Amino acid sequence: MLKEALIGTLCGAVALTIGILIGHFGIQKNSAPSWVNDVAKDVDEALIQQFLSEVETLQLQENLRELTKVPHMATSPGDEETVKYVLKRWQDPETGLDEAWRQEYKVYLSFPDPKNPNKVTVENSDSVLFTVREREVNYTADQNDPQVVQPFAAYSPAGQAKGKLVFANQGKPSDFQHLNKTIDLRGTIAITRYGGAGRGQKAINAAAYGVVGLLVYTDPLDMNDGLMSDTNETYPHSWYLPPTGVERGSYNRDFGDMLTPYLAAKENTYRISPEDITGIPPIPTQPIGFEDASTLICALAGEAAPQDWQGGFKCVYNLGGPGFKPSSPFNDSDVKLDIHNAGKIVDSSNVMGVIRGSVEPDRYVIYGNHRDSWVHGAIDPSSGTAVMLEITRVLGRMVKQGKWRPRRSIIFGSWGAEEFGLIGSAEYTEEYFTKLSERTVGYINVDISVFANATLGASAMPSLQSVIFRAAKQVDAPGFASTSVYDNWIRYANRTSPTHGLIPRVGYLTGAGSDYAAFVHYLGIASIDMSYTYDKVRKNVFFVHYFKGNEDFEFYSEKGFVAHQAVGRTAGNILIRLADSLLLPFNCKDYAESLEAYLNTAVTIYQKDLEAKDISMEPLSQAVANFRKAAEQLEKVIQSSDLANETPLKVRKINDQLMLMDRAFLNPLAFPHEYGFRHVIWASSSSGKPTFPGIADAFAQANSSHLASDWEKVHYHVSVVAQAIEGAADMLNEVI
Amino acid sequence: MLKEALIGTLCGAVALTIGILIGHFGIQKNSAPSWVNDVAKDVDEALIQQFLSEVETLQLQENLRELTKVPHMATSPGDEETVKYVLKRWQDPETGLDEAWRQEYKVYLSFPDPKNPNKVTVENSDSVLFTVREREVNYTADQNDPQVVQPFAAYSPAGQAKGKLVFANQGKPSDFQHLNKTIDLRGTIAITRYGGAGRGQKAINAAAYGVVGLLVYTDPLDMNDGLMSDTNETYPHSWYLPPTGVERGSYNRDFGDMLTPYLAAKENTYRISPEDITGIPPIPTQPIGFEDASTLICALAGEAAPQDWQGGFKCVYNLGGPGFKPSSPFNDSDVKLDIHNAGKIVDSSNVMGVIRGSVEPDRYVIYGNHRDSWVHGAIDPSSGTAVMLEITRVLGRMVKQGKWRPRRSIIFGSWGAEEFGLIGSAEYTEEYFTKLSERTVGYINVDISVFANATLGASAMPSLQSVIFRAAKQVDAPGFASTSVYDNWIRYANRTSPTHGLIPRVGYLTGAGSDYAAFVHYLGIASIDMSYTYDKVRKNVFFVHYFKGNEDFEFYSEKGFVAHQAVGRTAGNILIRLADSLLLPFNCKDYAESLEAYLNTAVTIYQKDLEAKDISMEPLSQAVANFRKAAEQLEKVIQSSDLANETPLKVRKINDQLMLMDRAFLNPLAFPHEYGFRHVIWASSSSGKPTFPGIADAFAQANSSHLASDWEKVHYHVSVVAQAIEGAADMLNEVI
Repeated sequence: MLKEALIGTLCGAVALTIGILIGHFGIQKNSAPSWVNDVAKDVDEALIQQFLSEVETLQLQENLRELTKVPHMATSPGDEETVKYVLKRWQDPETGLDEAWRQEYKVYLSFPDPKNPNKVTVENSDSVLFTVREREVNYTADQNDPQVVQPFAAYSPAGQAKGKLVFANQGKPSDFQHLNKTIDLRGTIAITRYGGAGRGQKAINAAAYGVVGLLVYTDPLDMNDGLMSDTNETYPHSWYLPPTGVERGSYNRDFGDMLTPYLAAKENTYRISPEDITGIPPIPTQPIGFEDASTLICALAGEAAPQDWQGGFKCVYNLGGPGFKPSSPFNDSDVKLDIHNAGKIVDSSNVMGVIRGSVEPDRYVIYGNHRDSWVHGAIDPSSGTAVMLEITRVLGRMVKQGKWRPRRSIIFGSWGAEEFGLIGSAEYTEEYFTKLSERTVGYINVDISVFANATLGASAMPSLQSVIFRAAKQVDAPGFASTSVYDNWIRYANRTSPTHGLIPRVGYLTGAGSDYAAFVHYLGIASIDMSYTYDKVRKNVFFVHYFKGNEDFEFYSEKGFVAHQAVGRTAGNILIRLADSLLLPFNCKDYAESLEAYLNTAVTIYQKDLEAKDISMEPLSQAVANFRKAAEQLEKVIQSSDLANETPLKVRKINDQLMLMDRAFLNPLAFPHEYGFRHVIWASSSSGKPTFPGIADAFAQANSSHLASDWEKVHYHVSVVAQAIEGAADMLNEVI
Repeated sequence: MLKEALIGTLCGAVALTIGILIGHFGIQKNSAPSWVNDVAKDVDEALIQQFLSEVETLQLQENLRELTKVPHMATSPGDEETVKYVLKRWQDPETGLDEAWRQEYKVYLSFPDPKNPNKVTVENSDSVLFTVREREVNYTADQNDPQVVQPFAAYSPAGQAKGKLVFANQGKPSDFQHLNKTIDLRGTIAITRYGGAGRGQKAINAAAYGVVGLLVYTDPLDMNDGLMSDTNETYPHSWYLPPTGVERGSYNRDFGDMLTPYLAAKENTYRISPEDITGIPPIPTQPIGFEDASTLICALAGEAAPQDWQGGFKCVYNLGGPGFKPSSPFNDSDVKLDIHNAGKIVDSSNVMGVIRGSVEPDRYVIYGNHRDSWVHGAIDPSSGTAVMLEITRVLGRMVKQGKWRPRRSIIFGSWGAEEFGLIGSAEYTEEYFTKLSERTVGYINVDISVFANATLGASAMPSLQSVIFRAAKQVDAPGFASTSVYDNWIRYANRTSPTHGLIPRVGYLTGAGSDYAAFVHYLGIASIDMSYTYDKVRKNVFFVHYFKGNEDFEFYSEKGFVAHQAVGRTAGNILIRLADSLLLPFNCKDYAESLEAYLNTAVTIYQKDLEAKDISMEPLSQAVANFRKAAEQLEKVIQSSDLANETPLKVRKINDQLMLMDRAFLNPLAFPHEYGFRHVIWASSSSGKPTFPGIADAFAQANSSHLASDWEKVHYHVSVVAQAIEGAADMLNEVI
């Protein structure tokens, strides 16, 4: 019986086993489709570590060398070379993207005439007493390249202008008001230093007073810590601007192609007449070096300029008689501008590349950098292009090897014609407005990736602060073995957040300084702009536009491209998080903190006056409070959800709330005369107050004019902002 | 051994069974989460049949009886009663919605002064020769209700105006041009018939010629097939307007609260001054009945009006001397208007109700009807409100009984102050602009549900044509046992589609005739407007505003509320399909067909002239071709997908493409002076051409002025429309 029992038990066991196997595998249970796991996948930290380890300094150096071989001003032959190079990289079968293509627009650019150089002279009757340099002193062979464009003010009209010289400080309206008290400005030529007002705006301000021509220079006090000598102080002895160095630049106020506002600039697109462009100089304008500026300014007659107009030259800056001192060699002479710039409609290319998303291909993370420089562009923009190409190399290889495909689609944009007014990126957003608006999670802009090697600098929508920090904590600071980019950053630029305590200071994207402008202001897309930079952030780093990629550049900036590497790692880390995170890494409570700060400023400086005009700020306070409440409520929903195990449509719902919240801040009617500025929180403001720009500017105007109609505009902007913030809160609130 | 073998076999079998059970249930296999089935659920045809069977005529009749007990002009006590009634119905624990609430706006309305009625008289020196009726003849007791507002032109200014009378046909610019050839119009009073130009526009056109006051009447030829006698021809003997009947109406051009354009009208919202409102009569204006109009017009002196100005009165319509014939009792007399209307900021309520979606709560299907009438409103709007309340009763009960919850959220809107300019719905879309824009799948508007019982009439975005047809095929036509609403409809209004052959004609939502306006023109949301109507659709059905719900109404319109039922069934069927379908029932190829028709018209009538002006229509043709291609490509993707078994994010991707495509047609800068009109395909046009409105109007202007700047505007609109259509095609194209 024992044997039989054993056999029986054995048979039973076998039967049981067979049964279990049949039961488990043989009977169709409601088994999970394969995509159930895919849709729940979150960002892979190991993959991020792999990415970080693969970003190589030698690759960055090689990228930069290749990109800066020749000057590549927009639409020049050198630009075309970079188009082909970027395309080649992105179409590489082993390290390229899924797809890459060239996208052309017919845009209106402005160039000097190489055969007929712009001239600035001092003349007395018919004799030329002095001629401003047409070319800079050559410190490097690079500058001898015939493709180096000579100094000019893009979009300055061609023409001659001749008159007595005056010194107009920064060319602000208040500067001309001051001059106008004692000098009849009609028919004069004004010389202004950089800063205070936009390049193009200086000429507009001047023309309003009858000034007929404008010179612009960089004062050594503003840029060089006062240092001026090229024998031992300035380039090539330091980064400082040498005496003959001139900043090229676009003298326009608005961004995008100026003949086709709000329309993509294609073959048959309606174009306004060039004469109808607003926001560009109405009078001949030319930038000059400070050596020449010093010669002119130190010879000026008239009373001494106010103390805060005085600059770095070793003389008293006078206002001008108008004109020069009797004691100077230029006594009784005029300054004459002879400008030969011309506008042209030319083909400018963006290069676009994509990695298709696996789970949510209809959600885009966009990473952009412009490709065009003024000259060789080793810093602006090719330091950023080098970084972008290194990021695409590492990610592209992972994709080609089948090791990775992002959850969301990634779009890379190598923008054209940025230097002329952010044209490539603006045309792109105009052409694909709805598609980008509905699908874009975020935009990362790295223009100049490395100004200097002191610290990371970043500006962003506040909702992205936390993901920037998270990435910056995972990357080593250049030059340090165990200090993160984050820990290094907090030493250089920090603030005390009511929520987080001491944290690095992330700036706001209130301007239009690079290609983030159209994404932020026109589309309302959460954006980041970042670079490695100086101890104190400087705005004008221009002489370095001349450098080529591999020689002087390294010597003057950093050893071994480690800052480029740190930026590539940080930006790429953020990119992967935006593309792969199950839940978008947006923190709306940080947005609330910024809105609260803006509100506090507004209440502090405006409320008393507004109450006197019967304008209540209550709707604004209420809106900000509602936004805070909604942000906290949404966070509670997130915290209490098991997102990886719920329907992917629930995750998508929350992600859409996070992604689209910023769109509610757009109002195309809020600033009808400011091209593309629709974001009522981050629009540029002339008031200089850290608060809601529409309210701040309207208040400044009303407080100066005392007109009832201007106070009404303040009230209008309070309503516009309050409604926008309520609308944003509604996006975060439970959907129904 | 047999026994043992048996036992062994039995044991084995038991073990096998246990094993199977353990294997199937006991071992955690990668089993499908419960939501996998939920997210794949499609519309349930059985549920639709159940819905259809539960829409009851007696309920509809009872709803109408309740809604039309008293006049319910916007913000009147009767309006407040309907607010409470709708709220009570939607909060009913057994048949109500998940939630319902009142939403108030402070809006600017215009009312006559009950204590000081508007007066129109014929006066000679100081003697009054004739007084226009202040009240209509009462044919029913209803009209004696003190809450019945007396005839007035809402937003006409208060004031006196006195002058010689002229007949100005329909008050179009061309009508005044004609009069102005022979008559000095300054200081005259003009009488105009309805039609040809908007109500408010007639007064604006008149004032441009110096006319000081305006009368408006309905000519029996335009409305009554010429019949005029209340002894046997007009109401109460027929639906025809009786001789003293006067159409009330809002004399405004723009929709939404006129003091707060683009801003929700709340307590502290910035308001423009009433004097700054544009698009309302600048001169005193009053509507009168045709009996009185006949007395005035038949007494006019001057030459005979052109043949096409002649109406239904038994006299020759003269233009006016200006003034009356010497042979008439009014010889040498003036017409005098004494208007006492006043604007007031008052609280107007929308009532909102929701059924939360189960799978995609962040997708909204909105169903709306306004609640305010001019008088009792048995037709406008309460015939529609009765239908809406019956739909919510049937769906609400299913929800409360746990039998159904829609995939997407359903929002019901009972709009306030529609008659004054679609105000409640417009304020709602202003307040929730981004949220609605990002989440709304479609809007269904049923204002007047039953004009008459001949046929369904519908206007919609072309993408919704197919779902309207599908629903209409499932509903019996009123009065027929085996003819569907669809089969009946095709007999009354049809067209031959290149794709579908003979089909019912669905109109376009190019106007702002009801609350769909803000959804279509301001938000770009796919919308439907529908009703049961006459053999030939009439635009002015106004006298019936007086009816109460249950008595005369039935007698004159239909027996037993079967047309109401048919509309309720059809609209509700569409509503369920939009809310429950896994794949949104949008057909973009039908949209392509409409764009192609518009393009063909544009090419036929404009291309030759545009080529002569060097304006290429090629970008437009290309855009329409690209749209067609994208629509067909998307359909192929849909056909080749097994959507119910793929990741729900793939279905969502396609649904978002379908839902958001229409948003690409919005351009807030295309018609900067036309409030809320941003949809470049469906915006209203004054050209009367069935083509792109911006191009048509700009062409008409240029073709008349021959100014180069006007031809540039045509070019501009060609570019705007081409870019919009390309953008819409991009939404349908594969996402990356």
